[in-house]
Amino acid sequence: MPGTYKKIELVGTSPVSFSEAVKSALAEAAKTVRHIDWFEVVEQRGNLKDDKVAEFQVVLKAGFKIEH
Amino acid sequence: MPGTYKKIELVGTSPVSFSEAVKSALAEAAKTVRHIDWFEVVEQRGNLKDDKVAEFQVVLKAGFKIEH
Amino acid sequence: MPGTYKKIELVGTSPVSFSEAVKSALAEAAKTVRHIDWFEVVEQRGNLKDDKVAEFQVVLKAGFKIEH
Amino acid sequence: MPGTYKKIELVGTSPVSFSEAVKSALAEAAKTVRHIDWFEVVEQRGNLKDDKVAEFQVVLKAGFKIEH
Amino acid sequence: MPGTYKKIELVGTSPVSFSEAVKSALAEAAKTVRHIDWFEVVEQRGNLKDDKVAEFQVVLKAGFKIEH
Amino acid sequence: MPGTYKKIELVGTSPVSFSEAVKSALAEAAKTVRHIDWFEVVEQRGNLKDDKVAEFQVVLKAGFKIEH
Amino acid sequence: MPGTYKKIELVGTSPVSFSEAVKSALAEAAKTVRHIDWFEVVEQRGNLKDDKVAEFQVVLKAGFKIEH
Amino acid sequence: MPGTYKKIELVGTSPVSFSEAVKSALAEAAKTVRHIDWFEVVEQRGNLKDDKVAEFQVVLKAGFKIEH
Amino acid sequence: MPGTYKKIELVGTSPVSFSEAVKSALAEAAKTVRHIDWFEVVEQRGNLKDDKVAEFQVVLKAGFKIEH
Amino acid sequence: MPGTYKKIELVGTSPVSFSEAVKSALAEAAKTVRHIDWFEVVEQRGNLKDDKVAEFQVVLKAGFKIEH
Amino acid sequence: MPGTYKKIELVGTSPVSFSEAVKSALAEAAKTVRHIDWFEVVEQRGNLKDDKVAEFQVVLKAGFKIEH
Amino acid sequence: MPGTYKKIELVGTSPVSFSEAVKSALAEAAKTVRHIDWFEVVEQRGNLKDDKVAEFQVVLKAGFKIEH
Repeated sequence: MPGTYKKIELVGTSPVSFSEAVKSALAEAAKTVRHIDWFEVVEQRGNLKDDKVAEFQVVLKAGFKIEH
Repeated sequence: MPGTYKKIELVGTSPVSFSEAVKSALAEAAKTVRHIDWFEVVEQRGNLKDDKVAEFQVVLKAGFKIEH
Repeated sequence: MPGTYKKIELVGTSPVSFSEAVKSALAEAAKTVRHIDWFEVVEQRGNLKDDKVAEFQVVLKAGFKIEH
Repeated sequence: MPGTYKKIELVGTSPVSFSEAVKSALAEAAKTVRHIDWFEVVEQRGNLKDDKVAEFQVVLKAGFKIEH
Repeated sequence: MPGTYKKIELVGTSPVSFSEAVKSALAEAAKTVRHIDWFEVVEQRGNLKDDKVAEFQVVLKAGFKIEH
Repeated sequence: MPGTYKKIELVGTSPVSFSEAVKSALAEAAKTVRHIDWFEVVEQRGNLKDDKVAEFQVVLKAGFKIEH
Repeated sequence: MPGTYKKIELVGTSPVSFSEAVKSALAEAAKTVRHIDWFEVVEQRGNLKDDKVAEFQVVLKAGFKIEH
Repeated sequence: MPGTYKKIELVGTSPVSFSEAVKSALAEAAKTVRHIDWFEVVEQRGNLKDDKVAEFQVVLKAGFKIEH
Repeated sequence: MPGTYKKIELVGTSPVSFSEAVKSALAEAAKTVRHIDWFEVVEQRGNLKDDKVAEFQVVLKAGFKIEH
Repeated sequence: MPGTYKKIELVGTSPVSFSEAVKSALAEAAKTVRHIDWFEVVEQRGNLKDDKVAEFQVVLKAGFKIEH
Repeated sequence: MPGTYKKIELVGTSPVSFSEAVKSALAEAAKTVRHIDWFEVVEQRGNLKDDKVAEFQVVLKAGFKIEH
Repeated sequence: MPGTYKKIELVGTSPVSFSEAVKSALAEAAKTVRHIDWFEVVEQRGNLKDDKVAEFQVVLKAGFKIEH
């Protein structure tokens, strides 16, 4: 992977699962950042409502090539 | 989130997946702790039986408001 | 668990989910290592292709008894 | 410090400062736990409202002697 | 907190205290980033001059919703 | 280990050794918590008096099944 | 260092050495970010090709003053 | 900052606040170490007496140039 | 220590103490690995039976020279 | 990178530099392990003799595909 | 514990056990440092000779009050 | 390595490379500390000037035997 890359930190959320939260964050980021190459999960959390998991949250880093 | 919160550490287990193990632990805890607000995944492990994953285990912290 | 155990570090991959990546790594390892008892997730990462998650990667440790 | 001690994890909040959040959590805990001896700061966070810090949050552990 | 969030890393400085350094960094960031929701303290440092603390420095992460 | 487990954090002390401190904490905890299954050492410390180790201290987590 | 600073995370690569990878990342970043003041090495990795190191990779954080 | 530096580890205490504990430790250290340049907070703890914070404790590292 | 070394991860168990668990793991490993030079303790755990410590477990890394 | 990978931990040594220590460990490992794909630096240490660096030591993990 | 404290890092060794290595390091340090108050275990390692543990090594921090 | 050892923390700097920064710190320390045996790299950082690396900084620990 020659070149220089940047890593940004995102938090994705989903009512369904951690993997959906990952996909959701990357889909949202892809709207403004081109060609994200990889991601790394940093943290997994969530919220409850009425004693049930209401939201899965995943903190992740996304890496992409710096292009000019 | 004004007020004071307590965090307890739980281990949930599930034969199906990590997310089911999370839900299982929080459902069990909800029987004695009222109004858990959030959780944080601390560790993900599991056991095998006959060369197959028999149990997913998730260590998590659950936070809830201290009420009097 | 009397006896001595060894832990090896594996990276499983799957186009579907993290849990499939875990299962895939353990199934592959079971071809040469007998009686893996437990696993611990060390890291969760992944690659993207065309702005979509193409591969889930899980780094895990697998523990098994040393037998002679 | 002979004897056995227990450590519990608390989250204190304050609109003023981190130290007030520490004091607030310990004062609340003292209502149900007797003789807390020491505390350890684990995490410092906070929320904003209208671009200003609205709440300081301190995650801390509190240690006290188990007495019968 | 449905949606996707971004976390950026800042270093605030203040001649007075750590909490002033936190507020200073967030006030500065608010000039270009809208609606920061929360922050997490990552590191606390400082410089001395003539054997006295001349500057408190706080490394923190600030999280905000990605909006289009 | 199907079911849900809780982990509590204890500090055991002993004038003799770290292992005695571990045993002491678990014996004390067993008076109020039933069926502790496992423990994990988190920290090892100690105090001195007159230039000699006067007390070994072990911070540990104890895990047990939640039963109703 | 009065003022507010931002830290960004970069990955530099070089076929030659880790230090060249550091320089390469900072030179690339300097094209769009003005006045980077310092950097911190976060991770050192690399790829092999035909049993030889083909690429050194350095993950680093670069800090610079926010100016308006 | 050309030259070689040494870092020493200190614990400052104060009945008032964490920042006073930092200043107290650095003032004490300045009596025997010349020209401390910077400090880094490593740990924040404290003791209670009669259910109130009696002492704030800050573990910190202090860096200074080695001079001959 | 010129040359190249390999580190493997082991778990030793003993009903008696942590140090016996260390010795037990290294004795077992010595049956198949020649000339282990050093070890590093990674984790200390244990199991209980009838409210008493039944097994001490030590996770350790063992290093030895690669020889051909 | 579809498939399953294994990571082994090595310590390379060199009288010259850290990068030579990395290359030395990977060259030695390549004699028995085929197709190492990547490495990650875990630790950097060294020994001195007569007040000069006599040996650079790098602890690293090497990853390669499991093939049958 | 009012006042200012210093922490130094020591490595104790013993052919017998980790606890003897702790005591040995503190006894040696007491020859030049007065009134060490507490210690914290940082790392536990050891060397082997002829496939047996020849030396237990404990890295620890020792804290003592700065007095003038 | 029988005996007791002390570890001190140093920061070496060099305009050339990280390894020169290591050597520079150890050469400076050798002027007042006799027989440093080993070192461990703790942190790698650096400063820039005019968009170029002006100084490599290495935080390291140096270990030596306590002799009387």
